Amino acid sequence: MPGGPPFTRLVENLPATVPFVAPEAFERQSGRPLRLRLGANESLFGPSPRAIAAIRQAVEQIARYADPESAELRAELARVHGVAPQNIVVCSGIDDLLGLAVRAFVDAGTVAVTSLGAYPTFNYHVYGFGGQLHRVPYREDANDLQALGDAAKGAGARIVYLANPDNPTGTWHTSTALQAFIARLPFDTVLLLDEAYIEYAPSNVAPPIDVADARVIRMRTFSKAHGLAGARIGYGIAAVETIAAFDKIRHHFGVNGLAKAGALASLSDPAHIEWVVARVDEGRRDYEELARSLGLKTLPSATNFVSIDVGDPARARALLAALQERGVFVRMPTAPPLDRCIRVTVAGTEDRREFERIFRELYPSVDAPSTSMRSG
Amino acid sequence: MPGGPPFTRLVENLPATVPFVAPEAFERQSGRPLRLRLGANESLFGPSPRAIAAIRQAVEQIARYADPESAELRAELARVHGVAPQNIVVCSGIDDLLGLAVRAFVDAGTVAVTSLGAYPTFNYHVYGFGGQLHRVPYREDANDLQALGDAAKGAGARIVYLANPDNPTGTWHTSTALQAFIARLPFDTVLLLDEAYIEYAPSNVAPPIDVADARVIRMRTFSKAHGLAGARIGYGIAAVETIAAFDKIRHHFGVNGLAKAGALASLSDPAHIEWVVARVDEGRRDYEELARSLGLKTLPSATNFVSIDVGDPARARALLAALQERGVFVRMPTAPPLDRCIRVTVAGTEDRREFERIFRELYPSVDAPSTSMRSG
Repeated sequence: MPGGPPFTRLVENLPATVPFVAPEAFERQSGRPLRLRLGANESLFGPSPRAIAAIRQAVEQIARYADPESAELRAELARVHGVAPQNIVVCSGIDDLLGLAVRAFVDAGTVAVTSLGAYPTFNYHVYGFGGQLHRVPYREDANDLQALGDAAKGAGARIVYLANPDNPTGTWHTSTALQAFIARLPFDTVLLLDEAYIEYAPSNVAPPIDVADARVIRMRTFSKAHGLAGARIGYGIAAVETIAAFDKIRHHFGVNGLAKAGALASLSDPAHIEWVVARVDEGRRDYEELARSLGLKTLPSATNFVSIDVGDPARARALLAALQERGVFVRMPTAPPLDRCIRVTVAGTEDRREFERIFRELYPSVDAPSTSMRSG
Repeated sequence: MPGGPPFTRLVENLPATVPFVAPEAFERQSGRPLRLRLGANESLFGPSPRAIAAIRQAVEQIARYADPESAELRAELARVHGVAPQNIVVCSGIDDLLGLAVRAFVDAGTVAVTSLGAYPTFNYHVYGFGGQLHRVPYREDANDLQALGDAAKGAGARIVYLANPDNPTGTWHTSTALQAFIARLPFDTVLLLDEAYIEYAPSNVAPPIDVADARVIRMRTFSKAHGLAGARIGYGIAAVETIAAFDKIRHHFGVNGLAKAGALASLSDPAHIEWVVARVDEGRRDYEELARSLGLKTLPSATNFVSIDVGDPARARALLAALQERGVFVRMPTAPPLDRCIRVTVAGTEDRREFERIFRELYPSVDAPSTSMRSG
């Protein structure tokens, strides 16, 4: 920086990058509001009315700092998960927790393992703390547990990231497969098990929580099925020693009081989550049927989105652009072999019909090989 | 950590410490709710009704992630301060911004300068990123600008922290004095100028904002006069290069949408801030009068709190404990020579009367030298 104090070498050398370009950025570029926002896997069925009411109520106390220990919420989460409050850390979403966990385990040269094309915010933090990334290709559109385990051992990884159910594919492994994967992890490797979408998954997907195993950090959020993405709140479940280490470095006053009130109220309304999950199941089937009717496959999904396989990356990119042109925000995986897909969040019935109408109209126009994209 | 993956050496060696023990922790200890919460310098006059309304409205959109660029709020802040949006970063309060700024400039062994007994969260982050702290004693209960400048040069500091108006004293320097201080800073030293309390200060306290000088990062918050502490939102104003560096490492989805809506609405209601400031002036005079009537001095304050000089640390500690026993939460500075004071947030009329009543009752009972504390 000419004329200014120098940043740390690490920060100076980082590329200017962001994990995601936001839908708002597209809106600013186009000068038009989006018609359908189906790219961020938000819950388009909204939060529990109890959460809404609790947040509105909590606004009365907004002049006060919230409890930095989040004691009430942690006690309730501990009860729900059968652990102690000392096994829980509350953060401003899983993104925040990823930053915290990476900071606790990664410094210059530390090796981190993830799938090639997995959630980019983990990578962002690994680079941000000077670590090295070892990326393992997806296998049959799922995280390759065997290869991830091999890489963790072979590359001497300190930290492994795994989303289950996975984003951006939607695919998942069973609890049994995960437990075998965890059993194989080296004793000095920590697994960040991102379970942001776990509420949408079958009951045999989440392994039992075992806080005696300091190698595993479970990550949960209120941003997905709980419908509180804008409130910024998630949590980690881990060994007492891990949570104590986080307490040495975390931003103690980082989580806002409204989010905590909303999260606590949402936990008291499991029926709402069941209702959301049922509606998402229904919507996923609609998208699958839409794809099938156009001769397209979809990836299996245990999440609130469906990845539609449109055959090749150029067609996926062309579709993405065409959809965006029509005010429809979706995303696509960034790395092969997943980049032949577009990823669509399950919306309510009306918005699904609208998406279907636009997709059916656009799809034939981009049904062209990549060469025509380049020449056109 | 026995049996678990090792943390980074830095994190492993950090002491288990928190910047502040929260009032909620006192409540949990005593099993009783606090009667008066006068220790966190929250605005006891509340936020603008416009902010409340905007937050309640924004709850409708809570299922959506908020704009990670905070474009709308940054545009408005840029307008207010006569800078470009590229000069603004929005964070979850100044604590979050302190962490970000420290991370950008501090790594192993970097020297940071602050006043002895100043805001502890800066220190927390400096240690958290492996820096060394050089502490300069207060002089006549104010930050010693001459000595801070000398220390920055002499110790080869990369970063200097200064709160103006100051916390925990409430004292301040004028814009002229600050500009002279800044002019003396080495070209490779960055000043974190924490102006959390600036709305309460006379108009000659904030230096003109000069984003051409990459050595200065201005820090502002909606937690104090804006009355939105529980929402977690603040911002930094700095050189474009500095903001760009922050963008490489910050938690892009960290600030919640409710806080942004509230902040934007609060900016549209400067009359509310004027009203709050006038009420705080009035309340400060009440506390000063209370102290005077007991033969005590107060430190000059350009904030929403008053530090009452009770003569010596033992008496201050005894008073703090006695107040807490009666359900009154206040704090005291931790380092000499300021630890002869207790720091009381300005409350509304009724709570001030209540505080006055309790303080008058308790003060004589702790009017004893430190020896009696030890023996009793």
